[in-house]
Amino acid sequence: MKFKIVRDNFLKALLIASRVSPQKSTDPILCNLKLELVDRGLYITGTNGTISIRHYLPIIVNDKQIIRDMVYGGILVNSFLLTEIIKRIDGDEVSFEVIDDSIVRIENDKSNFKLNGIRLEEFKDIDFEEVGAHITLLTKTFSETINQVSFAVSQKDNRPQLTAVNIESDTSKLIFTATDGARLARKELEVTVNEKLNANIPGKTLQEVLRTISTENAIEFYISDKKVLFCLDNTLIQSTLIVGDYPNTRNIIPKVFYYSLEVNSNELVSAMERVSLFSSDREFIVKLTMNENKVEVSSKSQQIGSGVENISNFKFKGDRLEISFNNEYVKSAIKALNCEDVTINFLGEMKPFTILNKNDNSVIQLITPVRTY
Amino acid sequence: MKFKIVRDNFLKALLIASRVSPQKSTDPILCNLKLELVDRGLYITGTNGTISIRHYLPIIVNDKQIIRDMVYGGILVNSFLLTEIIKRIDGDEVSFEVIDDSIVRIENDKSNFKLNGIRLEEFKDIDFEEVGAHITLLTKTFSETINQVSFAVSQKDNRPQLTAVNIESDTSKLIFTATDGARLARKELEVTVNEKLNANIPGKTLQEVLRTISTENAIEFYISDKKVLFCLDNTLIQSTLIVGDYPNTRNIIPKVFYYSLEVNSNELVSAMERVSLFSSDREFIVKLTMNENKVEVSSKSQQIGSGVENISNFKFKGDRLEISFNNEYVKSAIKALNCEDVTINFLGEMKPFTILNKNDNSVIQLITPVRTY
Repeated sequence: MKFKIVRDNFLKALLIASRVSPQKSTDPILCNLKLELVDRGLYITGTNGTISIRHYLPIIVNDKQIIRDMVYGGILVNSFLLTEIIKRIDGDEVSFEVIDDSIVRIENDKSNFKLNGIRLEEFKDIDFEEVGAHITLLTKTFSETINQVSFAVSQKDNRPQLTAVNIESDTSKLIFTATDGARLARKELEVTVNEKLNANIPGKTLQEVLRTISTENAIEFYISDKKVLFCLDNTLIQSTLIVGDYPNTRNIIPKVFYYSLEVNSNELVSAMERVSLFSSDREFIVKLTMNENKVEVSSKSQQIGSGVENISNFKFKGDRLEISFNNEYVKSAIKALNCEDVTINFLGEMKPFTILNKNDNSVIQLITPVRTY
Repeated sequence: MKFKIVRDNFLKALLIASRVSPQKSTDPILCNLKLELVDRGLYITGTNGTISIRHYLPIIVNDKQIIRDMVYGGILVNSFLLTEIIKRIDGDEVSFEVIDDSIVRIENDKSNFKLNGIRLEEFKDIDFEEVGAHITLLTKTFSETINQVSFAVSQKDNRPQLTAVNIESDTSKLIFTATDGARLARKELEVTVNEKLNANIPGKTLQEVLRTISTENAIEFYISDKKVLFCLDNTLIQSTLIVGDYPNTRNIIPKVFYYSLEVNSNELVSAMERVSLFSSDREFIVKLTMNENKVEVSSKSQQIGSGVENISNFKFKGDRLEISFNNEYVKSAIKALNCEDVTINFLGEMKPFTILNKNDNSVIQLITPVRTY
């Protein structure tokens, strides 16, 4: 295997493919990238065992030949070191050559690097086949959806399903759900899918896809029994799904509410940020006290003191209500809705409440309050 | 105690005075700022037990009255919380009032915060008196000097003196020395001091002074037996000195050299950064191999591979020499010299070498090589 390559293009490709490579692993092969040079160009594959990324670098990009003097072949080489070398090396072009199937020589006029390589066969086969339910979404719709739900996945591993975003098809709908047990985010898209679908896609996989999207207008993905495959322009991202039934969240969202608050998103978030300083032990708990004439955000602790903020722009319907909650949950739900005003619907001081964008009923945020007395 | 104050000025003052306040401490009083309102204005003092900062906020700044409705007095209040409140609060002006010597009320139209306060008497007396040897330096000279030596102080506490920069007066000179045992930085200034001087100023104190300097043209400081006091425009920074004799470093710097390398700073640093990737176990060891025709920077490890860089612009005098060193030490020494070309003088492969700016002999960097065979 041997080629000369334009440094900038090589670096961009390495930065994409190396992103999931661990720097250390009990399976040291995972720390490597697989480089394969064929007649169409260079394929670079990296994996962490769960998420795998394969990036394709064509020989000609924008009418410019970026790979030349090619001898086809392949090698595994340390992901971090190769990427760092190509990042730091000077010059427009570097030459890459495999010697004796075991040494990778990277050179330009001034620099001469030799990296230990590993034979291609040591790399686990990764299946990038397009099988299963096939979905195409506009990139904008996909990104918005993931941003509106994925923040609510659980950060703890004790219930692995909750670290995923659940995707379910329902006649003409695709429903995305994420919950960590204390809050839930749900988004419905009007999309018809060719197969019945109920899959748990790891939250981290979706974040990786978001980070990789560049100029694509649309994103295609395939969901089979155990895997999901995302197809971007020159990059494939494949991930194992999380096995096990996702909790049934259908009946968690209340249908009837007794109280309703309409409020400016920024004003509420700023007020919460200020009073949350007084939340004891930095537990982020704040209290909303509401009636038709006054809405107050407050927090207090014996040790520190107390903070009270008056909200000036609001509409409240219902009797007087006091409710306490984790302000980080409410802040991230409001941020995910990304709208000027939010509507918050309450059932009672110990019942879950919903946060909505009144101009977009496709997305719903649900939060469980906390007891403070 | 009671006053109204322009929020921006109050915040700037708090950000300076709170900088050394610990967020947690076995002595919880240290987590507080001391606020004292007198006829001249507001004094805010913070301390971590070693370094203390006192900032003075006059009533009138740039012809604008920034403090009004004053009732003189004082209180201790949590440094982090007060600063965060004033950072987050809205509006141009806040009102500050002490109730019953124990509660601090901070208010504007929308916000009402109560912070627990502590009586002034609980704060340890801190002496900001101007006593001892008196030195005045141009701010530019002071900053340059500290940047040229303080990076070389030890980061370990096992020999406390080495965490300091030693300042010694010698007839018409002031000599600044820092060493961590493996490298040494020394700077001489042509300054006459009114007293004989040999003091160990903590490296952290000097960094704090550098961070606090704003528009001052000159900086005055006073060094007494146990303390140093830096006087900036509206800020005093006082610090305890580190007791104990500083090691005698006078005879460490060799007078005669057998080899000399002149090289472009950037070219050498970039080459070292690239090859250091190959240094085994990330120990940052690289090797220079020099003769009159060729200078190579290299590094290798069994596990990773090897890297070799050719230096294109150099002048070398002497026989062939191979020498290995911690490239982080050489990089920070070159960075501290801050000049286009450096001169490196060697005695032999296991002898300390010096790095110099040939246009400025006031500063010298000395580095001990490492054995790699």
